[in-house]
Amino acid sequence: MSVTVVGSIAFDAVSTPFGSRERMLGGSAVHFALAASFFDLVHVVGPVGDDFGPEEHAVLRARGVDTTDVEHVPGGTTFFWRGEYGWDLNERRTLETRLGVFAEFEPKLSEASRAAEVVFLGNIQPDVQRRVREQCTEARFVALDSMNLWIETARDSLIETIGGVDCLMLNDAELRQLTREPNFVRAAARIRAWGPSVVVAKQGQYGALMITDEGFFALPAYPLETVVDPTGAGDCFAGGFMGFIAAHPAEPLEHELLAQAMAYGTALASFNVEEFGVERMLRLTSEEIAERVAELRRMTQFLERPVELRR
Amino acid sequence: MSVTVVGSIAFDAVSTPFGSRERMLGGSAVHFALAASFFDLVHVVGPVGDDFGPEEHAVLRARGVDTTDVEHVPGGTTFFWRGEYGWDLNERRTLETRLGVFAEFEPKLSEASRAAEVVFLGNIQPDVQRRVREQCTEARFVALDSMNLWIETARDSLIETIGGVDCLMLNDAELRQLTREPNFVRAAARIRAWGPSVVVAKQGQYGALMITDEGFFALPAYPLETVVDPTGAGDCFAGGFMGFIAAHPAEPLEHELLAQAMAYGTALASFNVEEFGVERMLRLTSEEIAERVAELRRMTQFLERPVELRR
Repeated sequence: MSVTVVGSIAFDAVSTPFGSRERMLGGSAVHFALAASFFDLVHVVGPVGDDFGPEEHAVLRARGVDTTDVEHVPGGTTFFWRGEYGWDLNERRTLETRLGVFAEFEPKLSEASRAAEVVFLGNIQPDVQRRVREQCTEARFVALDSMNLWIETARDSLIETIGGVDCLMLNDAELRQLTREPNFVRAAARIRAWGPSVVVAKQGQYGALMITDEGFFALPAYPLETVVDPTGAGDCFAGGFMGFIAAHPAEPLEHELLAQAMAYGTALASFNVEEFGVERMLRLTSEEIAERVAELRRMTQFLERPVELRR
Repeated sequence: MSVTVVGSIAFDAVSTPFGSRERMLGGSAVHFALAASFFDLVHVVGPVGDDFGPEEHAVLRARGVDTTDVEHVPGGTTFFWRGEYGWDLNERRTLETRLGVFAEFEPKLSEASRAAEVVFLGNIQPDVQRRVREQCTEARFVALDSMNLWIETARDSLIETIGGVDCLMLNDAELRQLTREPNFVRAAARIRAWGPSVVVAKQGQYGALMITDEGFFALPAYPLETVVDPTGAGDCFAGGFMGFIAAHPAEPLEHELLAQAMAYGTALASFNVEEFGVERMLRLTSEEIAERVAELRRMTQFLERPVELRR
């Protein structure tokens, strides 16, 4: 089993109340891949420019990520994003985006990437997502993320692409924007009518809420005393979620499996925001992940204790 | 065992995208009392004016609520609140507040109210809350709610009052405002240094997050397809939470009990918002409450399934 992810491979400049970094390895595919790499082999699909060197490749390879489909575009520049976060870290402001080699990216997947049974279409142009999805003929579970930019500029294409996946994962504000429904239950019903049977609303510091054929599942975010850099949290959530699914090839894709996958996604996201960029992921251990999932269990499980209600 | 609540007894005028009501029985003490009445005897403490008639008393008494300490102020007018909710129901706008008899309210508790072992200080002026707390000498668990108005106009008094309770329950925005900490973990640590060992952040549509001596506990809100009127949700949450605790007088006030109390609070709040004012609470049944708590369990519990993590 393996996981294929297409998405941005980027350099990020990030400023938060806790400090700033001028140039860090980032992008949705990178954050996803590092998180998912704890569970299974990950193939990264995406373009980079001349500025993407052996150091950056080494980061991915150190976690066993397959970079065969990281396409080097000679003369090009890697996608660049500059953003800043305010006091409460929930408001992100994009200061600069340079598409670079992403402007004309046409995904060409290797045999191994095409054969993955779990596929994540990270947040890029929906036509590109669809072309990746079409090449992955062996996929048993495909999930997609997107953002306000595509909802505003490519809504029809996005909805068409959503029609071909099993799971839509969006921030809850984007889910409202896409469906024009303020209510998750109704927004999810609309999405499910388009195709995906699973819808996950990412709620940032509040956690995540999922609906499947069997009903709802919700988990809070893991409470942290310090969130240093929220960038990539959603992609690490997706990486833990999809990685966990990939690691259970013999299990039916049912609510129970997806619920536990949510816990691993939540754990991975919580580690990622503890430090800038991918710093925390590079020294994360399996033991830490297992311990945090156990803590999430403890902080969400409650006993059944008899209570005699009055009338 | 019984529960005493002090708080507003009000007439509310509410407008939401689903309709409006010009004059409904409401107020923090009323919403709390109806929710808690499913668990134990509730004593309501608060003033009303000449406009508060037998019909309003009957609503409380129909659910077995003790109205001995509902003080009729001759010539006075009952507290009145007018508000409206926007499209996503998370933004509440207060259009009008008339304090009426609340302007000069001096709580005088009957023997029965003073003897309650569980006490809820609903959202009113913090000096008044403190005077009620001081009269309840038998209390084993006291919780307090407040709002931005008191944080802005009576912060020192509020902090003094918080120092005398076991549990602070606030909306998360108010918790940030009160502590000047954007982060729940640090905000809760600050509160706990003031006195209360339990802090509950009410997160509206996202649920609630608690900290006790034993750690965190979190529950999502129950997902509803239609929220008709969010007014009183926080007080019904408190009513279910405190009522559940009152119904278990022999149990130690530990994390495990409080966690299950959160589930009952969440269930009661979810029913209340399904209709305007107290309409839903008046035909709610014990069976419906038990079923919703069971559903909350199903949508938050996940199995431990082995996963072999890579390195």
